[in-house]
Amino acid sequence: MTLDPKRTVAELKELRALTGDDAGAQRVAWTDTWLKARDWFAKKVAGLPVKHHYDAAGNNWVTLRGASEKSLLIGGHLDSVPNGGWLDGSLNVLAGLEILRRIASEYGGRPPFTVKLVDWADEEGARFGRSLLGSSAFAGSSSIAVDRVRTDRDGVKMEDALRRCGVEMDKFSDATRGQKNAAAYIELHIEQGPVLEKMGLPLATVLGTKGVERHAITFHGQEAHSGSTPMNARRDALAAAAKLALEIRTIAGKHADAVCTMGSVKTYPGIVTAVVGRCETALDQRDLDPAVLATMYREAREASERFAHEERCTVEWSRIWSIEPIAFDPWLLDLCDAAIRDVSAKTHRMPSGPLHDAAEVSRAGIPTVMMFVQSLGGISHNKVEDTKEEHLELAVTAFDRLASKTIEFVGQGAK
Amino acid sequence: MTLDPKRTVAELKELRALTGDDAGAQRVAWTDTWLKARDWFAKKVAGLPVKHHYDAAGNNWVTLRGASEKSLLIGGHLDSVPNGGWLDGSLNVLAGLEILRRIASEYGGRPPFTVKLVDWADEEGARFGRSLLGSSAFAGSSSIAVDRVRTDRDGVKMEDALRRCGVEMDKFSDATRGQKNAAAYIELHIEQGPVLEKMGLPLATVLGTKGVERHAITFHGQEAHSGSTPMNARRDALAAAAKLALEIRTIAGKHADAVCTMGSVKTYPGIVTAVVGRCETALDQRDLDPAVLATMYREAREASERFAHEERCTVEWSRIWSIEPIAFDPWLLDLCDAAIRDVSAKTHRMPSGPLHDAAEVSRAGIPTVMMFVQSLGGISHNKVEDTKEEHLELAVTAFDRLASKTIEFVGQGAK
Repeated sequence: MTLDPKRTVAELKELRALTGDDAGAQRVAWTDTWLKARDWFAKKVAGLPVKHHYDAAGNNWVTLRGASEKSLLIGGHLDSVPNGGWLDGSLNVLAGLEILRRIASEYGGRPPFTVKLVDWADEEGARFGRSLLGSSAFAGSSSIAVDRVRTDRDGVKMEDALRRCGVEMDKFSDATRGQKNAAAYIELHIEQGPVLEKMGLPLATVLGTKGVERHAITFHGQEAHSGSTPMNARRDALAAAAKLALEIRTIAGKHADAVCTMGSVKTYPGIVTAVVGRCETALDQRDLDPAVLATMYREAREASERFAHEERCTVEWSRIWSIEPIAFDPWLLDLCDAAIRDVSAKTHRMPSGPLHDAAEVSRAGIPTVMMFVQSLGGISHNKVEDTKEEHLELAVTAFDRLASKTIEFVGQGAK
Repeated sequence: MTLDPKRTVAELKELRALTGDDAGAQRVAWTDTWLKARDWFAKKVAGLPVKHHYDAAGNNWVTLRGASEKSLLIGGHLDSVPNGGWLDGSLNVLAGLEILRRIASEYGGRPPFTVKLVDWADEEGARFGRSLLGSSAFAGSSSIAVDRVRTDRDGVKMEDALRRCGVEMDKFSDATRGQKNAAAYIELHIEQGPVLEKMGLPLATVLGTKGVERHAITFHGQEAHSGSTPMNARRDALAAAAKLALEIRTIAGKHADAVCTMGSVKTYPGIVTAVVGRCETALDQRDLDPAVLATMYREAREASERFAHEERCTVEWSRIWSIEPIAFDPWLLDLCDAAIRDVSAKTHRMPSGPLHDAAEVSRAGIPTVMMFVQSLGGISHNKVEDTKEEHLELAVTAFDRLASKTIEFVGQGAK
């Protein structure tokens, strides 16, 4: 059986019809629709000479045993956000399936090295607010004590929802066994941003995932009557926050791929007849270079203090979350470039702003790389998420080339 | 009985003890605590040679009949916001009571002109969001169709709450009868701002109430992923709003007493992982000069469109509410200056940012003026609202002088 990228597109549409509705994809992890998607996938795999199992964290493994136990891992995720898109995660899984079919056929069911396709559990964290759950269990970086007591909107505990799907959180650490013999990990994903579309390129090599500094920043001023308080007597917490909302663009603008986002502003008392006494904001800063990330964090902090001083306010910072930048494997970056050049005149290297399971796998010390395919309009996590079919097909072909090149790389024992 | 300003302070404290708690004054209109305050006040009035009645809008009138039916009106309000202060409104009513006592005593119960003290119903609008209710019924500017269906937090309809207190909204228009023979209206109020304290002055003549332009302004950009959307590809609705939040200070700063306030900002989707796609703000602009108010409104509107354009967003404006500036009577302004100079070395003229019942009375064509007494820290609508007792006493004395001078003015038939 030769590689058939059109079949991947057809299967993506089949999955969309089965697990989506008018509002988009509904494959939220640990729900019936997600289980339905996994059952559908199990049937797709059934005719192949593979073993199929779920690990202790609910990750779904399809193993094509080779002559050597050294393994190429190909990863994706079938789960989606609520009202999500048809490609985010699923593209990886179904492109991986097509590659398994090609390799199984080419080597008569027994390739020189083992190839494993993994559908990670709960990449999105949409229901319990904990993303990369399955891959972090695999990497041994999960935080069970914190996670098990998380609840969804209806008050259902994470631990109970997982148990219903046959996953015992106490046994999560057993998922690290999947690391054994893993020689390389590759992941194909839609870009989820507008860069490739603007450049007119279908594909890119992903340098790594950006580190994130995420903080709650609260300015404290003085609530005062909108009518009776002269402008020069005010301590307006919103004014200080507004200055920071603009300054973060200058701070990010000094670096090529850096981003800073103030995604939330809350005003108190938040009525039109009162000067804002307290303004709560949330700032997200990302870059692939740890030094750039540290500089941006310091500059935002200093700017916030300067603005607070100018407005006779005070400011306090509280870290919401942070993760260090993850740089992918230099050898695999070269292979990914080469795979893309096999199908396209030009390639491009770019960091990923969004996190992916690949970041967790890389943290586990497994050589990792990702390939991006262009997104239309830069939109994802939405039913309008889309990519041209010709680009999807090109991506499957290039990703298959990457798989072949990576198997060669594994064979050379380069790592 | 001579004027006894210390008694006014003592009665204010008595009222606070009766109708306040640890969180502040609780005399919200149309509640039992407000009725209790009115009963207490009725007992205070009982010994005087006056008639006491409630009009069709629930305004509480105490009439000291004089030789002429031409009347001086003195107004205030016993109602407060929840967790309010001890002086806002009550000071006027109790200072007016002291003046009634002095005049009744001085003229043996029959002064040359009639003096009426009115405790306006529901100045604050705290329960149903409709301020100046009683005085607008008096002025004939009430909006019954809109107001009667208003509900409080518990879903109680305004019409039903008023009926429980003996007020039928259908008969509101009868309250305009109170205008008959009204020759002048005076009102004493705490400043509720920091101006007099900063100037070191106890008292001021109020030029009028500022006009208000109040608008909801919504910026529409494009929700996008915080991680994957480069800075230069964003259409950040918060950035446009932040520019406006800062620009309104420049717009107000061109005029001596003008104020512009962005009191509320809401971000959508309002999560740290998304660029703000929609930002809803509320802008309040005030000035005593209609031309200044119109200019500020135009400039803010133009600035918002410029910022929307710069950020590749769109903007829409929706008027929440507006009121024209009300300028008080020039003759009465002079009398108020003179009354203040009788007790204090210096006086000052300033507009009122907050609205007051005096604005409605003035709209009815009755010559009106207000006197301000210094507030500590510029804080009101809060249990910490306060004024030095020596200033309260000085205010009662000056306000009594203003009452005397206004009666002379009425006698001269200057209007």
